[in-house]
Amino acid sequence: MPDVVPVQVDDIRLAHNRIAEHVRRTPVVTCSALDRQLDARVFLKCENLQVTGSFKARGACNFILSLSEDQARAGVVTHSSGNHAAAVAWAAGLRGISASIVMPADSRPNKIQAVRNQGIEPVLCEPTPESRQATAQKIIDQTGGFLVHPYNDARTIAGQGTAALELLEQVSDLDVVIAPVGGGGLLSGTLIAVKSLRPATQVFAAEPALADDAYRSWRSGELQPPLRFDTIADGLRTPLGSLTFPVLMQLVDGVLLASERGIADANRMLLDDAKLVVEPSGAVPLAAVMENDIDLRGRRVGLILSGGNLDLDNLPWSDASWT
Amino acid sequence: MPDVVPVQVDDIRLAHNRIAEHVRRTPVVTCSALDRQLDARVFLKCENLQVTGSFKARGACNFILSLSEDQARAGVVTHSSGNHAAAVAWAAGLRGISASIVMPADSRPNKIQAVRNQGIEPVLCEPTPESRQATAQKIIDQTGGFLVHPYNDARTIAGQGTAALELLEQVSDLDVVIAPVGGGGLLSGTLIAVKSLRPATQVFAAEPALADDAYRSWRSGELQPPLRFDTIADGLRTPLGSLTFPVLMQLVDGVLLASERGIADANRMLLDDAKLVVEPSGAVPLAAVMENDIDLRGRRVGLILSGGNLDLDNLPWSDASWT
Repeated sequence: MPDVVPVQVDDIRLAHNRIAEHVRRTPVVTCSALDRQLDARVFLKCENLQVTGSFKARGACNFILSLSEDQARAGVVTHSSGNHAAAVAWAAGLRGISASIVMPADSRPNKIQAVRNQGIEPVLCEPTPESRQATAQKIIDQTGGFLVHPYNDARTIAGQGTAALELLEQVSDLDVVIAPVGGGGLLSGTLIAVKSLRPATQVFAAEPALADDAYRSWRSGELQPPLRFDTIADGLRTPLGSLTFPVLMQLVDGVLLASERGIADANRMLLDDAKLVVEPSGAVPLAAVMENDIDLRGRRVGLILSGGNLDLDNLPWSDASWT
Repeated sequence: MPDVVPVQVDDIRLAHNRIAEHVRRTPVVTCSALDRQLDARVFLKCENLQVTGSFKARGACNFILSLSEDQARAGVVTHSSGNHAAAVAWAAGLRGISASIVMPADSRPNKIQAVRNQGIEPVLCEPTPESRQATAQKIIDQTGGFLVHPYNDARTIAGQGTAALELLEQVSDLDVVIAPVGGGGLLSGTLIAVKSLRPATQVFAAEPALADDAYRSWRSGELQPPLRFDTIADGLRTPLGSLTFPVLMQLVDGVLLASERGIADANRMLLDDAKLVVEPSGAVPLAAVMENDIDLRGRRVGLILSGGNLDLDNLPWSDASWT
């Protein structure tokens, strides 16, 4: 790996050893209807079945178990639209330290509830990156708590990379791996794991067209800010970070965009055909390969289903606003 | 096993060898929310992730691959409310023979569609056991096709038993296993596998209270007919058979009933908490343990999630008729 990459595959292996007894080695599921649809062999890495319902448990667990006693003493602080919030609350409980969780006020109700289920009342803020960071910083200034960044940290990235590490162990000879991109923690960990262990395997990022900062950053070669924060893939509304952007530039084979309608349809396909409850963000890789002209014929394709925290009272395909 | 039992565990092992390359070794999933709810360690055997979306693929595959060339020549015939229908259509295609599929006219639309997806147009009949059998017999008389019984056949039972065989390999030291009961094929195979390999493990049958023929048969010691055919657990509307009833009498530790409301709630819990799409029949074991007073505290409990062919346009918890 080039020097610009903040994490090496050995860091991901160490993370895996550190967290293995706490997180699940999630299954890889196949689905003949998807194989027919894509004319490929599709392997679904089921992070929707992970502890707390998403891959975020991996990074949060690795981060919090990596802290020294001194660093952990005053507890941890984070900001997140949902899945990282519940993951930090869970991992802090595992270590027996306190956690302050900042969430945008427009986070989905089921994701706020997931934090409460861990015994923690989240601090709500404005739904912008600036407000999230400022609110978290204020708590850090008051409590001395340690910031668990949701993606822009080597410990987080190494933890998220363990999903792809497992996928490569579970499925031989993958030709393509596709991961969703929001802040880029999962994507960076996936890129480092796959490009280190199987350099010939292509890795694509999948992103909602309504949250296309990674796509524009990749095309322009300069880190671009998000322009709006309203995709149904609520886990992917976050901007790329200073650590994850260079990894993407260095290693990704392409960034694929998905429409809101395509995300909703892919989400339903995953429930209907693969029998897996996935949230919109986790359906973005499938939506992206359905809507983009990349040749998958006869190839072995791994899709990382990042999370399963779907709000069953507001199913994305029931929303008439884009039909 | 006593002589009354039509299948021995070695038959289940042979079936497993015969079908292993065609069916999936389905994963076993854990869920901390369910563990907390039941104060137990719960292991979900995911037959919802099986080929064709249910365990029925196991029995149909074993049956059809067991036929001699002569027996297979004129094709196969079956009757089923849904999952067995799609499984026979699939397994006949695997062997390259024709299949005639009789389905009650009130079968769920998504289950009729699943048969059509295998390239076969089902023959619809009245929604009673008598009409199903008479319609199938008529086709057999006309075509010379071979009847693939959905449950009352040693080949079917041996195939269904392979799910529990795998579960015992995948999870050590199970204290309790719970399978749904309709015709009794899955339950019989489960009983024979578990009681042969781990005699101390308890096995309970779970049945909708609205389709309680197995419960009444078990309590009375005589095979009782069903009284109605309208439970939302549409896969469990079938009566016990002459082969499956004696296995149940001989080996089961109890038959647990579940209400319609309880089935709907359990179905939603499996989607919400375990992130698995299960159909109402597959949620009956969870509903039964929630509604019955059996002591699971601290025990290791395997639930067989029999199928995942849920109609997403008619979610069971959206039906206001029993609220």
